[in-house]
Amino acid sequence: MINQALIKEFQNITGKDNVLTQKADLLTYSYDAAVVEPVLPGLVVRPVNSESLGRVVKLCCENNLPLTVRGAGTNLSGGTVPIVQGVVVLTNGLNKIIEINEQDMYAVVQPGVVTAKFAAAVEAKGLFYPPDPGSQAVSTLGGNVAENAGGLRGLKYGVTSDYVMGIQFFDTQGEIVKSGSKTVKCATGYNLTGLMIGSEGTLGVFDEIILKLIPFPAHRKAMMAVFDEMSKASETVAAIIASRIIPATLEFMDNFTIRAVEDYSRAGLPTDAAALLLIEVDGHPVQVEEDAQKVEQICNKMGARSVRVAKDDAERDKVWAARRSALSALAKLKPTLVLEDATVPRSRIPEMVQAMQDIAKQYNLSIGTFGHAGDGNLHPTILTDKRNKEEWERVEAAIDAIFDKALAMGGTLSGEHGTGIAKSRFLEKETSRATIVYSKQIKKALDPRNILNPGKIIGG
Amino acid sequence: MINQALIKEFQNITGKDNVLTQKADLLTYSYDAAVVEPVLPGLVVRPVNSESLGRVVKLCCENNLPLTVRGAGTNLSGGTVPIVQGVVVLTNGLNKIIEINEQDMYAVVQPGVVTAKFAAAVEAKGLFYPPDPGSQAVSTLGGNVAENAGGLRGLKYGVTSDYVMGIQFFDTQGEIVKSGSKTVKCATGYNLTGLMIGSEGTLGVFDEIILKLIPFPAHRKAMMAVFDEMSKASETVAAIIASRIIPATLEFMDNFTIRAVEDYSRAGLPTDAAALLLIEVDGHPVQVEEDAQKVEQICNKMGARSVRVAKDDAERDKVWAARRSALSALAKLKPTLVLEDATVPRSRIPEMVQAMQDIAKQYNLSIGTFGHAGDGNLHPTILTDKRNKEEWERVEAAIDAIFDKALAMGGTLSGEHGTGIAKSRFLEKETSRATIVYSKQIKKALDPRNILNPGKIIGG
Repeated sequence: MINQALIKEFQNITGKDNVLTQKADLLTYSYDAAVVEPVLPGLVVRPVNSESLGRVVKLCCENNLPLTVRGAGTNLSGGTVPIVQGVVVLTNGLNKIIEINEQDMYAVVQPGVVTAKFAAAVEAKGLFYPPDPGSQAVSTLGGNVAENAGGLRGLKYGVTSDYVMGIQFFDTQGEIVKSGSKTVKCATGYNLTGLMIGSEGTLGVFDEIILKLIPFPAHRKAMMAVFDEMSKASETVAAIIASRIIPATLEFMDNFTIRAVEDYSRAGLPTDAAALLLIEVDGHPVQVEEDAQKVEQICNKMGARSVRVAKDDAERDKVWAARRSALSALAKLKPTLVLEDATVPRSRIPEMVQAMQDIAKQYNLSIGTFGHAGDGNLHPTILTDKRNKEEWERVEAAIDAIFDKALAMGGTLSGEHGTGIAKSRFLEKETSRATIVYSKQIKKALDPRNILNPGKIIGG
Repeated sequence: MINQALIKEFQNITGKDNVLTQKADLLTYSYDAAVVEPVLPGLVVRPVNSESLGRVVKLCCENNLPLTVRGAGTNLSGGTVPIVQGVVVLTNGLNKIIEINEQDMYAVVQPGVVTAKFAAAVEAKGLFYPPDPGSQAVSTLGGNVAENAGGLRGLKYGVTSDYVMGIQFFDTQGEIVKSGSKTVKCATGYNLTGLMIGSEGTLGVFDEIILKLIPFPAHRKAMMAVFDEMSKASETVAAIIASRIIPATLEFMDNFTIRAVEDYSRAGLPTDAAALLLIEVDGHPVQVEEDAQKVEQICNKMGARSVRVAKDDAERDKVWAARRSALSALAKLKPTLVLEDATVPRSRIPEMVQAMQDIAKQYNLSIGTFGHAGDGNLHPTILTDKRNKEEWERVEAAIDAIFDKALAMGGTLSGEHGTGIAKSRFLEKETSRATIVYSKQIKKALDPRNILNPGKIIGG
């Protein structure tokens, strides 16, 4: 239990201003972006340098205080919801970009650096950090790595894990564990970097992260294809993939989402369209022209009502900003928004889009579907009110049905939001009993007293 | 201990022909390509399907028989050298390509599939599996994943780990553990796939591997730049990287290696050159032309004696085949060949090349240097005779010096050969005491009786 003596110890490490204990403050850190019950922590602490972060970890472990590391709290699976009376460790004071190495194209960052700020800093040097989760304007790199966050560019550029070269982290003793390297290749020791990615703060506390950078694409072109039938749009996605063009982005929006987004953002989206595809190709200018032409041809052949190529960066940015507002736009419509990210092999997108419609009908629910169609990662979004018990039961049944459908197509429960609390109970369905046992053995060995973000991924 | 009753049990699982117990047979499996002491196993078993592989694992674990999985035995760090009287599990009977999915661009393979055969099978479908370790003609995909093998294309295309989407493996109980997915994105559960990559058979036995494929590059162009001074060649590497061109391949060969290779392969290499760069650019034809021109200009500007562009695929293939023969060519010269793979951030290549020359001089040794300069991964190759005790002591001191140099430049002990037995004792130098403890905790939790390839990576 957290008592006055312990509070004093935390204050000694980080300074008084960086320890919060008042209920009004604690409430802010009791939830994240997932639809799970809020939990009030006992204390919030904000280390502002590496050394004090290590001491905080050690102090928590010595006193059996469960600790949950929190970046921006944009988590969509409950991974940053703390434990009753536990400690929340904020990383927003650990926000230094330690190094951007232009020659060797890597960067070293602290976990609390904001994703979009980092992307802008490397872009200023002509370099590119592609992972762009929807929450990038506020999300932190540490949180992105802990959840293996994806984004709009997964199709061509992959996800966060494709850019993590190394992680230095604290174990439960507050000792430094090092893995990975600043070199392009590293086969030294166990791939602890791999293990840490997506481990949701349950196996160690990130101190520094080495990220891979690539040259900024020379040219890009964005376009919007408008469809009068949803199936035509989803089949166009499959046709583009089958043609072996790999766009940087290939996003889908159904009518429900289009209307919500247009109402919210006034970007000029066609609210009468059954579905939209937002597509961007990038690379060498000649390649971009060729790919853009081919994509346009495919869209037309597959029955698009119109295909509009963004005339300049301003138009391009406006459409992408509208797309990025989809979650906020939908969230305004009803008290509760459940955003899923079950993912299928990309050629199965037409089936998955159809399945969402069928499930909405069957359970009599409002489901908006948008997302990263090009990499098989749609976001079916259920609008509801959790206080309506009868409807909530239907929502839960619909979520089950969505997962079953994705798994039946050879898909996965989560493309980019992580397992957290919300999907923990479904894990065995996708994997096996032995997978859960194996995972629990790792957790128990590395954190025998279950201090590091307990209850996440593999449950209690 | 292996007795008649146990031999009988192995025979019951795999059939009599797939169990070897004669000393003459066992000798073949007592070593790999690393310079470490051979160890005679007690038995060699060759499962020919997934079910019998699982039963073999279980039988070994129930009887406390240490087991070492072996693909082609091309390992360069001793990872496939067995334990005294242990069991060697051969994977060459598990060589099915289970699926090549053209639409979703992935493949599912058994661990014993030969790398080059697999690459050819996907190329026949217009797809590309880039990782190309030097031993690809015989190495297996399971071995590549277990060691996180690299190759000549690491610079642009990354290494094996960049292509592993999922792994299904047996735990010590012979139960199936599943991780990863056939989807482009997967954030479900712990990243056990990441943990398994490079774990050298110490944490599980691979059953099936899901590999990512990409479209085959539309066009490519290879060239050879000849230098009269080694430093000019290594500085050209740095200059190409600094120009932000990313060739598919950027290989370096010093005079010692050139002469050995030419003597062996008669490919027409200039034996009077101080150093060669072999460069290949690929991608869209226009991009390839532009990049090739820029590379040529940089080579000339940096003082190349000549730059020759391969006039056709035959010429290209001849040069690459010669490069790939470097290890065999050097191995002919002296009884013992030590091939290292310490790796540095790529801009440090000129310093590293210089350091190799200094070390060769200081320890009075023949060191040939060749390798993947473009990704910072050189292969200093020491030619010696292990029976000459005095010289061998100098060799060991030189290896220490090479590692120290690489680490001082922010590099790593191993770019692509793994830690195995050979580099185990250096691991703490690169990481930390806590890293070793953390790694041992994982190993102990997942394999409490130390059955799975004991002694590798983290030592005894």
